[in-house]
Amino acid sequence: MAALSNRQTVRIRWGDCDPAGIIFYPRYFEIFDNAIAALFERALGITKHEMFSAYEFAGWPLVRTHARFLKPTRFGDDVEVETSIKFGRSSFELAHRITLKGELCVECEEKRVWIVRDASGAIKSHPIPEAVLKKFAV
Amino acid sequence: MAALSNRQTVRIRWGDCDPAGIIFYPRYFEIFDNAIAALFERALGITKHEMFSAYEFAGWPLVRTHARFLKPTRFGDDVEVETSIKFGRSSFELAHRITLKGELCVECEEKRVWIVRDASGAIKSHPIPEAVLKKFAV
Amino acid sequence: MAALSNRQTVRIRWGDCDPAGIIFYPRYFEIFDNAIAALFERALGITKHEMFSAYEFAGWPLVRTHARFLKPTRFGDDVEVETSIKFGRSSFELAHRITLKGELCVECEEKRVWIVRDASGAIKSHPIPEAVLKKFAV
Amino acid sequence: MAALSNRQTVRIRWGDCDPAGIIFYPRYFEIFDNAIAALFERALGITKHEMFSAYEFAGWPLVRTHARFLKPTRFGDDVEVETSIKFGRSSFELAHRITLKGELCVECEEKRVWIVRDASGAIKSHPIPEAVLKKFAV
Repeated sequence: MAALSNRQTVRIRWGDCDPAGIIFYPRYFEIFDNAIAALFERALGITKHEMFSAYEFAGWPLVRTHARFLKPTRFGDDVEVETSIKFGRSSFELAHRITLKGELCVECEEKRVWIVRDASGAIKSHPIPEAVLKKFAV
Repeated sequence: MAALSNRQTVRIRWGDCDPAGIIFYPRYFEIFDNAIAALFERALGITKHEMFSAYEFAGWPLVRTHARFLKPTRFGDDVEVETSIKFGRSSFELAHRITLKGELCVECEEKRVWIVRDASGAIKSHPIPEAVLKKFAV
Repeated sequence: MAALSNRQTVRIRWGDCDPAGIIFYPRYFEIFDNAIAALFERALGITKHEMFSAYEFAGWPLVRTHARFLKPTRFGDDVEVETSIKFGRSSFELAHRITLKGELCVECEEKRVWIVRDASGAIKSHPIPEAVLKKFAV
Repeated sequence: MAALSNRQTVRIRWGDCDPAGIIFYPRYFEIFDNAIAALFERALGITKHEMFSAYEFAGWPLVRTHARFLKPTRFGDDVEVETSIKFGRSSFELAHRITLKGELCVECEEKRVWIVRDASGAIKSHPIPEAVLKKFAV
């Protein structure tokens, strides 16, 4: 299965930053969450919102995350966010790298689970649909 | 119908503040949203989460808000948030006042609508249930 | 003085939305705050971060805001944010309109003050620099 | 050096949750950041804001974090957040555990660095002041 990666430029904004003038680090996890949606949107050609009706899909909750913060970023910075994915059967792993002018600022690995809702509305893990995997296997 | 009011002390936190060292103003609207939930919880004796199953209720979306910002607040400040409510038929109006050591920092008026979901799952406005109004009419 | 306006497309994201599946309304005020920075960046040719060293400038705190919410927006929506500005002597007024597929969803008016820091580090209001006004007077 | 721990009850709020009705996971990192401030406040008897003038201190930026998410939490949940600290020379490690009704939902380990500002305003790591360590060594 070929891994796909995606790259985005993200502006660090005033409201993302704390009284030290640097990004408040929980904002990085919002950036990562958006980066995953962008990666799937690029591969599938539809938004995360559309995925709920197009596939057996109810979300991709996080199982674990591990991040290292090497250099701070500041409001006005346009950072590069590069995200790559590796699929398991009903879960997938992501690696994010945030760089500023070529220098690595943050790296993060995440594991997420593909979930669906059963008839009762409860969520449970589920194999990633073949139709999704095919779109990533360029 | 008697109006009920509620008062809370809220700590302004590091992550609520911006590079100028003062609260990033959208955080005030999060404080107001929490204040409304606290007001109903005090009157009804159940959380907003429990309201979804206890009453005909699917939320209270905002129709309009008007806020004036008189003095900034900073991380470490313990502000007083006072919220009062006035009920209409299927909407209600709120007034919030945030003070720090007795000085008025922010005042805000909001109008919100009581909504329910119909059989199709669509939301629509709905008269505020009598059982709710009774709890407020001390 | 000619008023300048700016228009941006903003994606409403998963993490902006609440359990009702619609945007959590304080996020709109983050969108407005970013829209102002984008408007000045377009007019001045530098980021808000660069404005702190380029001009007598220490921020534009909000004095008042008034918003009306006509239609909800949802994650996956690409909304249009149009912002226009009207300058006073040491303050300015903004009007924001958020539309989705041509339909008005939110409108908001804000008043903000131009501030500088004096020698002691305290902030005070200050006339908007001529050099800034000139850039807007196309 | 004795490790101190602190325990807080934190309400998961409507605006912390996403369209799946569960907490949007970046909010956990805001909870952890607040938990650290609460731990130091308990040990030192002053707020984080007061630490900036009371000690050689300019912040505690994150170096790395590792979190595991075992069970989701929902708005209306009152979770227990337990945080313990272990000091190094100019850094410290934290362990956070979030439980709901006795069941473990999230666990997280973080490493943070104690920083000061030099004469130029630049930040650099610095040994944790003896006066701070003494307060923790009950």
